[in-house]
Amino acid sequence: MPKIEFWCDLASPYSHLSAMRIDTLAAARDIAVDWHPFLLGPIFAEQGFKTSPFNLYPAKGAYLWRDLERLSARERAGFRRPEPFPQNSILAARVALALDAADRGRFIQGVFRVQFCDGQKIDDKAALGVLLDALSLPRTALEAAQSDAVKARLRAETDEAKARGIFGAPFFVTSDRELFWGNDRLVEALDWAIGRY
Amino acid sequence: MPKIEFWCDLASPYSHLSAMRIDTLAAARDIAVDWHPFLLGPIFAEQGFKTSPFNLYPAKGAYLWRDLERLSARERAGFRRPEPFPQNSILAARVALALDAADRGRFIQGVFRVQFCDGQKIDDKAALGVLLDALSLPRTALEAAQSDAVKARLRAETDEAKARGIFGAPFFVTSDRELFWGNDRLVEALDWAIGRY
Repeated sequence: MPKIEFWCDLASPYSHLSAMRIDTLAAARDIAVDWHPFLLGPIFAEQGFKTSPFNLYPAKGAYLWRDLERLSARERAGFRRPEPFPQNSILAARVALALDAADRGRFIQGVFRVQFCDGQKIDDKAALGVLLDALSLPRTALEAAQSDAVKARLRAETDEAKARGIFGAPFFVTSDRELFWGNDRLVEALDWAIGRY
Repeated sequence: MPKIEFWCDLASPYSHLSAMRIDTLAAARDIAVDWHPFLLGPIFAEQGFKTSPFNLYPAKGAYLWRDLERLSARERAGFRRPEPFPQNSILAARVALALDAADRGRFIQGVFRVQFCDGQKIDDKAALGVLLDALSLPRTALEAAQSDAVKARLRAETDEAKARGIFGAPFFVTSDRELFWGNDRLVEALDWAIGRY
């Protein structure tokens, strides 16, 4: 079965739009999705960015918020601009990695939904506990998320992202190591994975 | 007849990919294309960029060159990486503005083709003269390009781009002032222009 890696920061609004769509689009092509939460912060910092480029460049920011509104309306997704933006995604990413790989995608989709549709903060342990309950996922993941092993794993994933040449989110990576950047490229990445690009 | 504005810097490789496709895609929707060459350099400079972000961020550059190769192969366009990159596009943009509006698109498409398919430099007066001849366009545009009126017009177009919130290329702008950024958004912009987004 062909595979696609989905690399995302859990505070990334365009990753939200891809996370909503990837299951159906991948299933239609018999492609398995391998979810890779990582942190964009350290990668942006190496590029000299102290915050999201959305915040650094006003014209880019104005465009991107309008674009997200437009795209979300088209996908009937609802959209709220998180306050503050970007949210601190480190705890949510650790919880995602503490879960079984089979449950990871469902949890990540939930984190995006509460953040970008319901306007909830995602750095709050209690709120993530409620989300785990709602998804019938084990609350023990909240404790495991604080373990040295999981913390090291998130650092390793972020290092791996950097080593692959990932500099934003979302990124899709095929088995032959082709990179596709951005929600706009989701379908192309999936088509590449089955030799139909 | 609905209209779309196509804002491009004549050294922008993703603008090349859109310029190749826009005539057919717009005609299929009965949309008129209004070509707006401008200069990205002054806009990048205001963002603090001294050259193209392709050059400033190595991971982004590596990704984008590979992406252009992949997209060009898919469009059967041929692709050569200009040397140096970016080319100085000021003379070509002035010549484009010196031509009749009806001829502007054809000339811009020619500039992109010789630059990204044939590997020619575009800051060379003789080469642009050959291109004008090949397209049966008046060579007088080369002299007109040096006039104060045309120089002022290019500055005004660049100021207008900035005022509209344009921060990269290509940008597509609909009659109701919606902005769409990037070659990936060409079809969406055209669909928006006819109320089919």
